[in-house]
Amino acid sequence: MKSTRRELLRESILEAASNLFIQRGFQGTSMGDIAEAMGVTRTALYYYFRNKEAILQELVSEVTVMAGKLAAQAADPQADPAQALRQMVKQHARLILSHPVQFRVVERNEENLPAALHKSAQAARRQVLDRFEHTLQAGMQAGQFQVVAPKIAAFAILGMCNWCAWWFDPAGAVPQEDVADMLAQFALRAVTGADEASRPSGNSVDASLRRLREDLALLEKRLQG
Amino acid sequence: MKSTRRELLRESILEAASNLFIQRGFQGTSMGDIAEAMGVTRTALYYYFRNKEAILQELVSEVTVMAGKLAAQAADPQADPAQALRQMVKQHARLILSHPVQFRVVERNEENLPAALHKSAQAARRQVLDRFEHTLQAGMQAGQFQVVAPKIAAFAILGMCNWCAWWFDPAGAVPQEDVADMLAQFALRAVTGADEASRPSGNSVDASLRRLREDLALLEKRLQG
Repeated sequence: MKSTRRELLRESILEAASNLFIQRGFQGTSMGDIAEAMGVTRTALYYYFRNKEAILQELVSEVTVMAGKLAAQAADPQADPAQALRQMVKQHARLILSHPVQFRVVERNEENLPAALHKSAQAARRQVLDRFEHTLQAGMQAGQFQVVAPKIAAFAILGMCNWCAWWFDPAGAVPQEDVADMLAQFALRAVTGADEASRPSGNSVDASLRRLREDLALLEKRLQG
Repeated sequence: MKSTRRELLRESILEAASNLFIQRGFQGTSMGDIAEAMGVTRTALYYYFRNKEAILQELVSEVTVMAGKLAAQAADPQADPAQALRQMVKQHARLILSHPVQFRVVERNEENLPAALHKSAQAARRQVLDRFEHTLQAGMQAGQFQVVAPKIAAFAILGMCNWCAWWFDPAGAVPQEDVADMLAQFALRAVTGADEASRPSGNSVDASLRRLREDLALLEKRLQG
């Protein structure tokens, strides 16, 4: 078998197994069920994975470990916090949007992982969180982000992205890339936006005048400082 | 037994069962396990719930059905979309923050629900989503919200709230109410904020001047229009 074909079959197994793990639970799924769902023999299946734990391990590294790697590769937040945050949200969202079922399996079955893998999944998750928090802190220090608690803000942004695994339909009307863009925009607005309570919104003359007064006061303060 | 004591015991059963369902899965948990975890007899447990399916049913109505009810009670978005959105985010976040483990159980075990309950849980979830989407649309029509796809924005906001079930620690340093406030602020900024690409942020003289020019242009347009 050519390596591309092998790779495709491997991906099909991961997908079929993910769907069964979601429908019947990890405990309720056997290697025989997976082979049957794919219309292949058990022997063919065992050629790729020695047991269902090995399939779950592979799913974990595809999703969780990859998320950690992506976070580590993101742009330097010191140089441009907004740009770094935008890139991180997009990368993370793309990963979830391209592996929604796998992500749900991983989130639902962590207790079934062998201890070492559970630990590395936790470490990868921690790495993602730390990286987001670090980027938010850099933006706060640069005076670009208005955030009270960077860790909670990081969880809020991750929640926005991770939740995609529960609603995004890859066959739906909105392409993956558009969703990733919208989430990145949302995250940036959420952390950079002036407080909606103090910053008057709307297009009315009154709101515009109030904004102008605020901006003038800010500029004056800056020039004096 | 007084009714308060009965109520407290009932809540303890729901909590103990939730923890076991999370740790061992719904299939892997028996009524005996729940009784043992609580240090009560099985007879005492059966006085409250006839089987574990009944416990899961109760958890679903506590969380999902309540979320639907809250959404239906929210303020009229036509009157003040921003206020309505703030209230809806806070209410939904409070519900998740006060029932994190229960919420995770419900999300993870929907396939174990009897068909009728599964249907009502889906309907409640749909009601919450519709209500958020409707509020976002009202804000767009009023010119207050800048949102491209209200349904995706609704999912993003719900994701921010729902994800709390996976990270929030009721015994942690940040109180529930503060988290709910932060999430409401985030959501409002995300939907009302000027586009971070066109709206210069930061406190520099240059950014302030560019904002002033923008606001003047907007005001001029408004006065002419």
